[in-house]
Amino acid sequence: MTQKVVTACLIIIGNEILSGRTQDVNLQHLAIELNELGVRLREARVIPDIEQTIINTVNECREAFDHVFTTGGIGPTHDDITAASIAKAFNAELMIHPEIEVRIRAREAPPEVMESRMLMARVPVGSTLVDNPTGGPQGFQMGNVFVMAGVPMVMQAMVSSITKERLGGADPVRSRSVGCYLGESQIAGGLAAVQDEHPDVDVGSYPFYRKDGFGTNLVIRGTDESELETIVEKLKVLIVDEGGEPQDPIG
Amino acid sequence: MTQKVVTACLIIIGNEILSGRTQDVNLQHLAIELNELGVRLREARVIPDIEQTIINTVNECREAFDHVFTTGGIGPTHDDITAASIAKAFNAELMIHPEIEVRIRAREAPPEVMESRMLMARVPVGSTLVDNPTGGPQGFQMGNVFVMAGVPMVMQAMVSSITKERLGGADPVRSRSVGCYLGESQIAGGLAAVQDEHPDVDVGSYPFYRKDGFGTNLVIRGTDESELETIVEKLKVLIVDEGGEPQDPIG
Repeated sequence: MTQKVVTACLIIIGNEILSGRTQDVNLQHLAIELNELGVRLREARVIPDIEQTIINTVNECREAFDHVFTTGGIGPTHDDITAASIAKAFNAELMIHPEIEVRIRAREAPPEVMESRMLMARVPVGSTLVDNPTGGPQGFQMGNVFVMAGVPMVMQAMVSSITKERLGGADPVRSRSVGCYLGESQIAGGLAAVQDEHPDVDVGSYPFYRKDGFGTNLVIRGTDESELETIVEKLKVLIVDEGGEPQDPIG
Repeated sequence: MTQKVVTACLIIIGNEILSGRTQDVNLQHLAIELNELGVRLREARVIPDIEQTIINTVNECREAFDHVFTTGGIGPTHDDITAASIAKAFNAELMIHPEIEVRIRAREAPPEVMESRMLMARVPVGSTLVDNPTGGPQGFQMGNVFVMAGVPMVMQAMVSSITKERLGGADPVRSRSVGCYLGESQIAGGLAAVQDEHPDVDVGSYPFYRKDGFGTNLVIRGTDESELETIVEKLKVLIVDEGGEPQDPIG
């Protein structure tokens, strides 16, 4: 009954996230895609563009998780140090990847601009490509580390090219939600009992506060659809027992 | 000239972020507030509601950074294990904090609901409070770890109560931005030179793609306002030299 769980970690490389300039949206996108691919996102880290930090973080995470995804730092400027840092993490040399070079040279540019752009063709020796369906330079996979762009449009295109087979993904992770205008404390006891009865399912409760009142959304996640339906019915009974009215999750 | 840099790490505790159900907004909010408080957010981690993971992550981060902030997991339900996990990380006992208890008991509730709610009054022995200006249960500070709610409205209220003096913050970190419709590769060389001339300032470039064209926003961050102004002028010259037109950052 228990299937192997395939785990992943996301490393977001970028001072612009840590400075507050940019709101990250890559984490949520990857999380949702990985649910479909049968991979569990177990951790995410946001780190600055500092070589030793990238090396240490990548080496720690690639040991701890089945897959590691990175976003950011693969452009053509001085602060784009991801490819070189990943190479060092693996004690590998950098090389110019011929397929990436073809894409880069397809767009004409003055020599000094082309020289900067060609920085995006560098990958560690031993890498395979992660396609970039936007037509721009590809990302790469080194060992269990998938290196992708930070710009969301490009990152999303790259993620779309990664198949379940490539990740050895298990069953997709599904979720169901039920909302109610009851405080978390009112359903805490019943909810803990449901979690105890279904240890393979993740049972979460999320309070909300709106103009029309406060309440709680209950979210369950697991791979067994029929078990999820059973739990939804239990949650509805729990809500009614506490004097509430089960409804669609309240946003 | 060089001031002590005060560093921080944010630990976001919550399965709902890793599952993709919820878009985190606490990181960006904290980052922006810490800039004003003269503290540099150097790393963020998103971890699941698993006790040993919380303990290990907190213990690693409180050694590595001046301050650690956590969000999430301090509600009244079975998956709210942050306070107990922080206590274990510090080898401290849990206690009922009398000031939190007063707030919780001020709102009447049936005994079993009050019992669940009182879970929110538990703090490790040795903690001080982090105020909650919304009027709900407070967060707490244990050592250099600030434990806050995950609901953004409550988290933001708690952050607003933390003073620069409490964090020993240095000068505020300021930023300036210049946008242009030039590719990153076109300005990469000049930008690297500017970074070399101003090692204390963080010089970043962020490509964008819009219907009306593509280009790059240049962002500089540092504590010395006059140095930032000097660099802005250099960046404008660089953009003009490459045939572009400096303008406000392009969103």
